[in-house]
Amino acid sequence: MKKSIGARTLVYPTPVFVVGTYDEKGKPNAMTAAWGGICCSSPPCVSVSLRKATYTYHNLIERREFTISIPSEGHVAEADYFGITSGRDVDKFKETGLTPVRSERVNAPYVKEFPLVLDCQLIYHKEIGLHTQFVGEILDVRMDEDCLTDGDPNIELVKPIFYSPDNSSYYAKGKCLGRAFQLGKGMKKR
Amino acid sequence: MKKSIGARTLVYPTPVFVVGTYDEKGKPNAMTAAWGGICCSSPPCVSVSLRKATYTYHNLIERREFTISIPSEGHVAEADYFGITSGRDVDKFKETGLTPVRSERVNAPYVKEFPLVLDCQLIYHKEIGLHTQFVGEILDVRMDEDCLTDGDPNIELVKPIFYSPDNSSYYAKGKCLGRAFQLGKGMKKR
Repeated sequence: MKKSIGARTLVYPTPVFVVGTYDEKGKPNAMTAAWGGICCSSPPCVSVSLRKATYTYHNLIERREFTISIPSEGHVAEADYFGITSGRDVDKFKETGLTPVRSERVNAPYVKEFPLVLDCQLIYHKEIGLHTQFVGEILDVRMDEDCLTDGDPNIELVKPIFYSPDNSSYYAKGKCLGRAFQLGKGMKKR
Repeated sequence: MKKSIGARTLVYPTPVFVVGTYDEKGKPNAMTAAWGGICCSSPPCVSVSLRKATYTYHNLIERREFTISIPSEGHVAEADYFGITSGRDVDKFKETGLTPVRSERVNAPYVKEFPLVLDCQLIYHKEIGLHTQFVGEILDVRMDEDCLTDGDPNIELVKPIFYSPDNSSYYAKGKCLGRAFQLGKGMKKR
């Protein structure tokens, strides 16, 4: 039996996207956001929603280029810190000891210590309500070499995390349940 | 050292959204999509991107109401099946033995056996490229009573899954890594 728990932003999982931008003076900033995801395969695009009150919102409107760095298990505290402080008040990289690196592809910094980075160019943004959705074309994806196996990304080495909005907690990846486009084949009519 | 692996749709995690719609004759359909996520807190909104070639695309354009059912570990094969077949060709509910239930809130069916359901009303859609992004306001969220603890959602009981685009595989939830808005506090300047 299903019970109504009211209109709320609850899905599992949500990602932990760390959005990298430069401010007007060129100071690197990083901000954690859970409202986002891939939104188109061709061109490859990703969306991330931000409140107008954030420092990153204004950086993004101005610069129109950003990165998304994906943290692994070992940096969950730093990723959380990026979400609870503002670049207006602090230098988040300095405070965490993490390293901002200018992307080779876009005019935006990424987090060196995080294993996966998307280089993005803003193609449009749309004000929905409290949040504005930014959609960026993914111009390149870069991964730590030690997270690749025979040149391919290896999720077991990346150790990605996800966010659960119901209890405001982070979770690790669990066991593999099987291959997509395969598991369901058993149900196809004989 | 980071290595370019090319522009591609790789983030961890992506969700497993099962989009429920009625077709023009009222036949319930369900389609699995991984390109989506929460996109606004107020009003609460969720986005999901679909190719024009899908049956659900046309149902959604026509009906403007949909549900998102979130499967748990035990139904990963059914969720995969919903993603590899078309409602044009088969009755997916009949084939899987799962039960379509008309939502009390919107004119769309949900999957009874999945623990979490979002009732959504389309507020706009945007053609990006191969995919069109649909943004829906979440009018209600309903959860299986046996996944609630003292009235609150309990992720340990929901047992949600996520999708990894790199190896096209499904994963279970892993261990809890800590609380958001808490873990990062240790890094705030004294």
